Amino acid sequence: MTAYDQLFAIMSRTADIASAAAVLGWDQETYMPDGAVAARAEQLATLSTLIHQFMTSDETKRAVERAKSDVATDDVRKQRIVSTFERDVIRSSKLPDDLVHEAAHTAALAQDAWKRARMSSDFRIFQPLLEKTVELKLRQAEYLGPAEHPYDNLLDEYEPGLTVGELTPVFERLRKGTVDLLNDIQPTAHEVNDDVLHRFYAPDRQLAVATDIISKLGFSLETGRVDLSAHPFCTSFASTDVRLTTRIREHDLRSCLFGLIHEAGHGMYEQGIGADLARTSSGQGASMGIHESQSLFWENIIARSEEFWQWAFPRLRDAFPDALSDQTPREFYRSINRIVRSLNRVESDEVTYNLHIILRFEIERDLLAGTLKVADIPAVWNEKMSTSLGVVPPNDAEGCLQDVHWSFGGIGYFPSYTLGKLYAAMQWQALSAEMPDVRERIANGDFQPIREWMRTNIHDVGRTELPSEIIQRVCGRPLTEIDFLDYVRAKAGRVYGFA
Amino acid sequence: MTAYDQLFAIMSRTADIASAAAVLGWDQETYMPDGAVAARAEQLATLSTLIHQFMTSDETKRAVERAKSDVATDDVRKQRIVSTFERDVIRSSKLPDDLVHEAAHTAALAQDAWKRARMSSDFRIFQPLLEKTVELKLRQAEYLGPAEHPYDNLLDEYEPGLTVGELTPVFERLRKGTVDLLNDIQPTAHEVNDDVLHRFYAPDRQLAVATDIISKLGFSLETGRVDLSAHPFCTSFASTDVRLTTRIREHDLRSCLFGLIHEAGHGMYEQGIGADLARTSSGQGASMGIHESQSLFWENIIARSEEFWQWAFPRLRDAFPDALSDQTPREFYRSINRIVRSLNRVESDEVTYNLHIILRFEIERDLLAGTLKVADIPAVWNEKMSTSLGVVPPNDAEGCLQDVHWSFGGIGYFPSYTLGKLYAAMQWQALSAEMPDVRERIANGDFQPIREWMRTNIHDVGRTELPSEIIQRVCGRPLTEIDFLDYVRAKAGRVYGFA
Repeated sequence: MTAYDQLFAIMSRTADIASAAAVLGWDQETYMPDGAVAARAEQLATLSTLIHQFMTSDETKRAVERAKSDVATDDVRKQRIVSTFERDVIRSSKLPDDLVHEAAHTAALAQDAWKRARMSSDFRIFQPLLEKTVELKLRQAEYLGPAEHPYDNLLDEYEPGLTVGELTPVFERLRKGTVDLLNDIQPTAHEVNDDVLHRFYAPDRQLAVATDIISKLGFSLETGRVDLSAHPFCTSFASTDVRLTTRIREHDLRSCLFGLIHEAGHGMYEQGIGADLARTSSGQGASMGIHESQSLFWENIIARSEEFWQWAFPRLRDAFPDALSDQTPREFYRSINRIVRSLNRVESDEVTYNLHIILRFEIERDLLAGTLKVADIPAVWNEKMSTSLGVVPPNDAEGCLQDVHWSFGGIGYFPSYTLGKLYAAMQWQALSAEMPDVRERIANGDFQPIREWMRTNIHDVGRTELPSEIIQRVCGRPLTEIDFLDYVRAKAGRVYGFA
Repeated sequence: MTAYDQLFAIMSRTADIASAAAVLGWDQETYMPDGAVAARAEQLATLSTLIHQFMTSDETKRAVERAKSDVATDDVRKQRIVSTFERDVIRSSKLPDDLVHEAAHTAALAQDAWKRARMSSDFRIFQPLLEKTVELKLRQAEYLGPAEHPYDNLLDEYEPGLTVGELTPVFERLRKGTVDLLNDIQPTAHEVNDDVLHRFYAPDRQLAVATDIISKLGFSLETGRVDLSAHPFCTSFASTDVRLTTRIREHDLRSCLFGLIHEAGHGMYEQGIGADLARTSSGQGASMGIHESQSLFWENIIARSEEFWQWAFPRLRDAFPDALSDQTPREFYRSINRIVRSLNRVESDEVTYNLHIILRFEIERDLLAGTLKVADIPAVWNEKMSTSLGVVPPNDAEGCLQDVHWSFGGIGYFPSYTLGKLYAAMQWQALSAEMPDVRERIANGDFQPIREWMRTNIHDVGRTELPSEIIQRVCGRPLTEIDFLDYVRAKAGRVYGFA
């Protein structure tokens, strides 16, 4: 056994336990009986404790050291597998056990408090636990430090290498471009409505059509499947075992259809990761931002394009003749791209969505910098909503209590969504340059070369490259908002009729 | 932390990993995509290696020693939890790693060879791997020894404490009683047929009726659920998370209905295990034989009784009016209790089933004793079938290759099925004595007191008592075939019309 083989035995043990935990998590959201909640929590706690023990053991650290000098210098891929795992080991080892436990404990209490706070629309119920969460995040940032900004260490968990210094100007320009675009739309805003999406659509047909579409896009049902759950998600136990979930609403065509295409974007990413990375910590998506770029690419850039519906609309109308016989592909295309300022992040459109994210990013960043107090969040939230979106929540439930993320300690996560949008637009730009007939292909339902391009350029490398390295290699430039603004302005022009 | 608490931390860690492995096993049989087979095998191998490591570590052994002297002498239950775990640790430690690995490897090869052998009905394809399996079992028996008979050590895995010396005379008398009974039936054998069971029954209704019935029997759908799989089974991840599976055949009413009642018997057992045994190795069924007694009690003694169908038949006829409107409960009762000599164990009835088991037991025992060679199995099988059942398989596929058990190394398992039948009849005898109106209750669909009797007497103790201790305590006697022969003779008399 080489030193690398010995390290592989350690990496694969941890990866297998993590996969088992993921199966338990999937089961919990799909099929687990209600009475099993407590037992499942104990099983998952045991598995995560084991993972943490194995990741931080001296045996693991020694194996990493030995493997580093063992792998041939020209075997870049293997070197990256080792250095990625080393990064994970170092990060795990930096956080003391008691902090990890306290964070898990606080998250459990905070999630419960958040639910109650949202129910009664009373931020004060959540406030003490959010204060505790921020305090723990600051301590965590300190252990992980040093960094220019304490928030950098939290960003790094979801988008390795990204910093506040880099992100702030991009988000500033994105906001300005978005506000300009919204102003341009204003005169013809009333011309687009989405009433057609709220007619009656039989649930079983929604699922059948959506499943058929994702399979045509390239999600393999040989190495994946689709189930129902309260909140849609994608989880992966191996590149050969990828699970998607969706939910179906009788009077909202978007939920199942676009939700499942979104998850299938995540799923195709997981299915496309190089087989040589299996059972290592490199056999995952490169970051949350890159992952979101894949889901949003398929959901928005492909499946909300006019060309896509040239191909897909006849299929959809065949499934729902009663609801869609009076529609043309073009009308349908306009409906699914309606842009409107609203209170709710999840329900917002492709353009205004980013304003919701920028607001959350600024609040998180200022909390960590100490320039914003938790108690002041409701007021700051409403003020920012008014300034950037022109709407004010009537209460905190529909305002600063709408998202689950802070309650589970996911501070630093929100930017991933907008990064995904920016990356997706950059990838679309690069793909269009390399494949001039890409729009024609979409209109013909010929998705295979698009998926293949993604597989080769993005999926295959897994976590062996940093997000910034992937974007630079594939798009020839670092992160920028320009491609997204170009893309979204062009589309808005087609939908709202301006140039 | 007391020494017991420290041991509990070790026991619960192992139990949680075993539960996680069970979830992965359930998923594999129900929902896992085909492409995931290889990845799942690796995940399960990692979990079982971990369990073995934890069970045999010095830390575990020291914790057992400390806990033994720590638990109060009057806390019998806790003492039993410790001694049961100690028994498991000792057993695990006796088997060297390389033997365990070789057995797992051989089982994988043997299962494949068995499938091919059965497909082409050629025992010689399976023979070398069965020879290897027997050799490994002999080595295993030697490590586990000493014992009067090498087969004792294999029996012990499934029925702790049971020996060849004890089992042989019971099986001898059971065979004799069974053959006598079959002779008594002979004159009126043609009067009963089961054609009605092979009419058309819509699959979704079969599942709905069967699920309704098991829920009325007492299987909780709050802490359990039902799914479909190729081979029906019951698995449990906690007493609050018990999964049953079934299969449905359009033209065989028995498969889903009686299959699910059978699995629900296993399931109610798991759901009834004392909460204080959770996450210890005592929080399981006492043995395979006791487990089968629960499934067979509900499947045969309850759900194949005339009283049961007084209650259940109107429900079944409501679900299938086309198929059952010409039937009476009594006719239906006779059909589901038809007794007929056949080649196939799984499809055989309550009476002849045991002859199939006794044949397999004798072959296994003689293989381990060295008085029978693997190469001679086909000839011996056919000869024994002819003598005891009066039928001879036309080929090995329908003969000695019909069961999967030997291919996965499950030598010693078969007796559990018949033990289950004998235990169930003994329990029925004890229950009837304590609850004189039990037949009336069944006819009224009042199953709750029966289930409660089982829960209190059998389920609650989990593995804190040996099977022989449970039977002695509940039935006032050790293992006997008498109650089963009495029960089955009385029933055959009702069905075939003799006294």
